[in-house]
Amino acid sequence: MKLYGFYQSSNVYRARVALNLKGLPYEDVIVNVLNGDTKTAEYQALNPQAKIPALQDGEVVVTQSLAIIEYLDEKFPDPPLLPDDSVGRARVRSISMGIVGDTFPLLPSRIRNVLANELQQDEAGVRRWCHDWVCRGLATLEASLLGDPATGMYCHGDTLGMADICLASIIRVSHRYGCDLAPFPTVTAIYDRCVEMPAFEKALAQNQVDAPPDFKGW
Amino acid sequence: MKLYGFYQSSNVYRARVALNLKGLPYEDVIVNVLNGDTKTAEYQALNPQAKIPALQDGEVVVTQSLAIIEYLDEKFPDPPLLPDDSVGRARVRSISMGIVGDTFPLLPSRIRNVLANELQQDEAGVRRWCHDWVCRGLATLEASLLGDPATGMYCHGDTLGMADICLASIIRVSHRYGCDLAPFPTVTAIYDRCVEMPAFEKALAQNQVDAPPDFKGW
Repeated sequence: MKLYGFYQSSNVYRARVALNLKGLPYEDVIVNVLNGDTKTAEYQALNPQAKIPALQDGEVVVTQSLAIIEYLDEKFPDPPLLPDDSVGRARVRSISMGIVGDTFPLLPSRIRNVLANELQQDEAGVRRWCHDWVCRGLATLEASLLGDPATGMYCHGDTLGMADICLASIIRVSHRYGCDLAPFPTVTAIYDRCVEMPAFEKALAQNQVDAPPDFKGW
Repeated sequence: MKLYGFYQSSNVYRARVALNLKGLPYEDVIVNVLNGDTKTAEYQALNPQAKIPALQDGEVVVTQSLAIIEYLDEKFPDPPLLPDDSVGRARVRSISMGIVGDTFPLLPSRIRNVLANELQQDEAGVRRWCHDWVCRGLATLEASLLGDPATGMYCHGDTLGMADICLASIIRVSHRYGCDLAPFPTVTAIYDRCVEMPAFEKALAQNQVDAPPDFKGW
């Protein structure tokens, strides 16, 4: 399999963690978003949404990080990343979409460019926008997990899954924007359990082949 | 079942269409987002994400429109809203998340309030932000569908499904913001097939019990 991505991308990070958890080897294809690599005709022939990640599995191309995780989970069910009951799956999907769907779309370079160039926000203003939405996303996630008996060692019971991958990705980006994590003890406790695993460690931005040598991570 | 929602919400619209397509009766519970009804302790006990829709099915509460559609499709499989093969499901999920995950999070009142109050955008500026992101979302959707042999009478082959519900929701909101639809013939052709169906008609904002009598829709 080939994973089209860029070291900095949180959306690609989620796909990497899922591949690593499944023990699936993959080849990196670098798509430098900051250089406009998603805007080429060649890339858009592969992914008309012009975003990363894209997973190529033989003739099949899957895009959008959560669709990639669901696809991998259906094709390579061991270890499972979604619960085996439909109520559990609904909860994991809702938590995952609450992170990936409600927070991350506010952060990519296409948004930051509009804020800077069209809405005349200076660098501090753009950073404040990202910081504030990530903090709000973390508060929503903490509220979703705290006090719900379905929450366990991980987001859903004691089994690692898709929602934990999403949780790790929002904590990673919160480091970039300097969010105070003290108000989110449930989220950070789960994160701490995740990051010890090689599947998460290998997926970090600073451990990718396209990360500049002086990039130490956020 | 009870559907917690508000007549104007595109996210609730998708849940309504899915319930209607499945022929499932439901009771409306009005949550007026503009009046802060999602911010009450009572509502957040039901949905800690503090958003709409929320679907209550007996003891089960499901939130996030796509998680609701997947839940309904698993519990009430007829008619199916996702394909029966994993490659098809991956494509439908990716198209759906490309709409629901990448465009709609940029439009809700919480975003418009930050644009107006913190980024000092006037009403025209806020409207331009919404207009431009919806147009870009439609362009991405058109590119995803056009020329892909998997596209048929509907987004995926000739069977109506989750991606078509998402497609209809972005066309509805594009009317609100006055997007020119001429560049998107594939999208509008599919939309035209959808809106003739009672399941879509019944779900329109202007046909909800909480719509003001003088609200004619967008």
